[in-house]
Amino acid sequence: MYSRFCLLSLLLGCLIQLSLCSDTAVSVQGEQDHEQGNTTAKGRSGESRNKSSKAFPVVTVDFAHVRSPFVVALWILLASVLKLGFHFFPKLSSVVPESCLLVCVGLIVGGLLKTVGETPPILRADVFFFYLLPPIILDAGYFLPVRPFTENLGTILCFAVIGTLWNAAFVGVGLYAVCQIKGSGLEKITLLPNLLFGSIISAVDPVAVLAVFEEIHINELLHILVFGESLLNDAVTVVLYHLLEEYSYAPHIGAKEVILGILSFFVVALGGIFVGVFYGIIAAFTSRFTSRLRVIEPLFVFLYSYMAYLCSEIFHLSGIMALIACGVVMRPYVEANISHKSHTTIKYFLKMWSSVSETLIFIFLGVSTLAGEHHWDWIFISCTLIFCLIGRILGVLGLTFILNKFRIVKLTPKDQFIISYGGLRGAIAFSLGYLLNEKFPRILFLTAIITIIFFTVFVQGMTIRPLVELLAVKKKQDSRRSINEEIHTQFLDHLLTGIEDVCGHYGHHHWKDKLNRFNKKYIKKCLITGERSKEPQLIAFYHKMEMKNAIEMVASGGLPKFPSSVSMQTPRRRSTLSERLLPTLTKEREEEVRKILRENLQKTRQRV
Amino acid sequence: MYSRFCLLSLLLGCLIQLSLCSDTAVSVQGEQDHEQGNTTAKGRSGESRNKSSKAFPVVTVDFAHVRSPFVVALWILLASVLKLGFHFFPKLSSVVPESCLLVCVGLIVGGLLKTVGETPPILRADVFFFYLLPPIILDAGYFLPVRPFTENLGTILCFAVIGTLWNAAFVGVGLYAVCQIKGSGLEKITLLPNLLFGSIISAVDPVAVLAVFEEIHINELLHILVFGESLLNDAVTVVLYHLLEEYSYAPHIGAKEVILGILSFFVVALGGIFVGVFYGIIAAFTSRFTSRLRVIEPLFVFLYSYMAYLCSEIFHLSGIMALIACGVVMRPYVEANISHKSHTTIKYFLKMWSSVSETLIFIFLGVSTLAGEHHWDWIFISCTLIFCLIGRILGVLGLTFILNKFRIVKLTPKDQFIISYGGLRGAIAFSLGYLLNEKFPRILFLTAIITIIFFTVFVQGMTIRPLVELLAVKKKQDSRRSINEEIHTQFLDHLLTGIEDVCGHYGHHHWKDKLNRFNKKYIKKCLITGERSKEPQLIAFYHKMEMKNAIEMVASGGLPKFPSSVSMQTPRRRSTLSERLLPTLTKEREEEVRKILRENLQKTRQRV
Repeated sequence: MYSRFCLLSLLLGCLIQLSLCSDTAVSVQGEQDHEQGNTTAKGRSGESRNKSSKAFPVVTVDFAHVRSPFVVALWILLASVLKLGFHFFPKLSSVVPESCLLVCVGLIVGGLLKTVGETPPILRADVFFFYLLPPIILDAGYFLPVRPFTENLGTILCFAVIGTLWNAAFVGVGLYAVCQIKGSGLEKITLLPNLLFGSIISAVDPVAVLAVFEEIHINELLHILVFGESLLNDAVTVVLYHLLEEYSYAPHIGAKEVILGILSFFVVALGGIFVGVFYGIIAAFTSRFTSRLRVIEPLFVFLYSYMAYLCSEIFHLSGIMALIACGVVMRPYVEANISHKSHTTIKYFLKMWSSVSETLIFIFLGVSTLAGEHHWDWIFISCTLIFCLIGRILGVLGLTFILNKFRIVKLTPKDQFIISYGGLRGAIAFSLGYLLNEKFPRILFLTAIITIIFFTVFVQGMTIRPLVELLAVKKKQDSRRSINEEIHTQFLDHLLTGIEDVCGHYGHHHWKDKLNRFNKKYIKKCLITGERSKEPQLIAFYHKMEMKNAIEMVASGGLPKFPSSVSMQTPRRRSTLSERLLPTLTKEREEEVRKILRENLQKTRQRV
Repeated sequence: MYSRFCLLSLLLGCLIQLSLCSDTAVSVQGEQDHEQGNTTAKGRSGESRNKSSKAFPVVTVDFAHVRSPFVVALWILLASVLKLGFHFFPKLSSVVPESCLLVCVGLIVGGLLKTVGETPPILRADVFFFYLLPPIILDAGYFLPVRPFTENLGTILCFAVIGTLWNAAFVGVGLYAVCQIKGSGLEKITLLPNLLFGSIISAVDPVAVLAVFEEIHINELLHILVFGESLLNDAVTVVLYHLLEEYSYAPHIGAKEVILGILSFFVVALGGIFVGVFYGIIAAFTSRFTSRLRVIEPLFVFLYSYMAYLCSEIFHLSGIMALIACGVVMRPYVEANISHKSHTTIKYFLKMWSSVSETLIFIFLGVSTLAGEHHWDWIFISCTLIFCLIGRILGVLGLTFILNKFRIVKLTPKDQFIISYGGLRGAIAFSLGYLLNEKFPRILFLTAIITIIFFTVFVQGMTIRPLVELLAVKKKQDSRRSINEEIHTQFLDHLLTGIEDVCGHYGHHHWKDKLNRFNKKYIKKCLITGERSKEPQLIAFYHKMEMKNAIEMVASGGLPKFPSSVSMQTPRRRSTLSERLLPTLTKEREEEVRKILRENLQKTRQRV
């Protein structure tokens, strides 16, 4: 079975190579056609045929006109087959993270392409930002665990904003100092390019973090801290990048520029969120009306999210934050409106797309490494690596020192270590470096970026799992808190809100309560279709649970505990009474029980 | 609610216009960037910024770099919103088919674009053939009703091959005769262009047929005859188109060219089928191994089908036939291997994609009408229309006259009328016309093609429903034949196979039986994963049925007839005994019961 797979992969690789080889000869023709907007699609125009009339050709080969969709399909196929293949070697993937394996595959493919005299394709920044990144971020945003995220929002923001700024400044200034050393050969790199480089290299990458953290099953708090940071630092990166590039044209940098820069940070972050929320609400509103045409429900979710991303890109706002906001806002309403099957489709497709995108990104990182030129400078690159590591550790230590004074659940030294060690860099940094113009030492920067990415993905990515086990860091628990605990937490929440009301102090419990009430009173009525919102909640929930229950019972092979209308036998009672009195609840079910209890508690409170 | 929708659509229209307007100014820049392979994605490269340093811009607008994905997303959004909107006017869509409404919307959008001084976008042939057509054909192929299709294959092939050839010749020669009339102003159009035009205009279009026939719910026989014809005539169209274009360069056309042309027809048709079957088997084989990674199962189905289409396009084979063959071959094995959720996703996504593609095609047909130049020639166009109608009617009458001598179920005059009237033309003809090179009177041809498409879609599409009702043509029946009937049909099948065996005459029953046995003995073992194929069939089926039953019971709100493990109440018995003795079976269930009975009958036969 394994050998078959290897064979298949090899075959695929050869095919890709072949397709790329036969490219060169015809690519000029193909591109010219494309420009004329009159591509010889379907190959029927016969323009590319040689005019000397021979006998009528029974079989002709014309690769040029299908080249671009064919190559794209082939790459995706390679990614899927690889993804599938890795699952046949559980031992391998328990030691080496998938991301590392994929980068290696990329390196091999790139090497093969080079040996046959091809320039391997490079990960183009537009392809990355417009087609590969959005599915991953939407998947992350749509399934974002909202409660842990909001509960730790302060900490996450600190790491994302202050931490990233600190890292950028530390790396930038440090490298500038190194460049000033006589004889380093880097004297012509001034402060500004160094800072720009620092801002590119200092942002933690969500794709890399997801790929590694999903495999090590770290506890929820650490996961959301590192992953949340990687999502929210996008705004900082966008602004810093834009700002420093802008400054490189400016004759001098005054106070006005700095103030505008700070202002622009808020515009980028809040603007992105606003665009996301706007599209999220439109998507929720649209899903109110789709009950007659269930089949295009998933499309609206994907389309509106993508529009949110693109719209924020038009105004140079943070596209990642827009996507996250859009996913978070639309989810509760969309899920209430759409059908069970649509929901499955959305879930499945997001997971499918994001996993394929991720695979492609890592493969292309490998391929791109062999594609471009490189300028290897020992001093610059090793200094970058050292400054990145030190900056990250210092930043995390410093920030947690301050944050721990405010946090109820303190971050232990182990946590701090994992947070600093989990600061992986990835394809976003590469793409940003790729976009740099010629004013900067682009080749040197790109080489350094790739080195850092490889170091973090390979060394940190591969060692983080043993380290987590060595340090006995708390892992993700499958079993959740008991309902009793949950009810008490909720009760305390409401109590705190009540106390805040009485004190006249408006803390975050107060505002959360306000928001919940507003949501219930107005927004839900607007965004959730009539039939559903009128249905008593418990009955709706009961329906849903019955459905899940039924599916599970049948799927688990615990044949009919219930008499079906098909089986004409008399019903048997297999389940004992105790089983029925102490039902084993799954996580999702428990979640819902909690939700209802929570809201009913709130009702009680409002009544009293 | 309606007004909200109109508003939304209007808004969307305006947005599209806006986006297209702001295009022109930046499109040159955008395209240049694209050529350099260094697109200013993420807009961070700052190259398009004017160099005169102003204060740091807090908000910048840069539409150029997101233009192409944005415009595509906007068009798809427009299509989805329209599709949704039409479902709010059930009265309107019961009179006018959706395709007509969409073409009208296209015309309006095109008109609006023209009034603001924009050239509306045209339906590019490569976009159509590579991105819009495949989803529709794959959807049709994957869900093709195989039994009626194979039972009527002879009739369908006659219509598709001989009928299309006859139509092409009739229209071509007829128009040539008209062109020869002195004073028509068309004297310079020789026989060859006329024949080429005939071959483009005479093929029935699957997209148009699907759009109209899905709405009128005609009986299965007529549906499969017209739809099957529209699918299989692709090979004829490809060959004729290619052949005639090739001939237009040849100095003279000899017997050799004609023989090669006939040979090439077989190559194109059988080659397409071969490519499709090849990829179908690979897809089935791959799905054997996906049990550890359920989430990318749907991707393999889509990818392999698309590869089949593209591969056959490389060799100028019939892509449509490849897709159909691929879908038909892979379906039984893939469905046996993949999970229930993957299956839902595939079904949902195919339906979603195909319906959006269809919507886009019709909108673009409308828009494209206003986009290009036109050359309106009363004589040529009215003659085309008349010849098309007469040719189609004569062809159908003549062919059915011959076919009825062989058919057991004769085609009545009513059937013949619907078959000839259902010969709708559509976007394939338009795209082929669009691809013509300048040697031919392209503008005149395109105008004529558009006129014929509009005539068939509007006049025939709108009147076919009243005519079907007026003639009392048999509609599609929801209730299927009883199981008893089905068993007898199967029994007769096996009897006939036996008789054929005894006589030593190898008819199609014999070969079908051989194929079934071969499939069971070898192919299923290769392509269906071990666990599944070993599971006793009846138990597997029972499982599946239980699952469906459970879902339906819960979904239909007929709350628990079975005690769930969650509800702690004592089980109630609502269903009476008679209900349980006479279970109401749904169609799918019946289908499966039949399948099992059928195969078990076969077993009995083999034993005896």
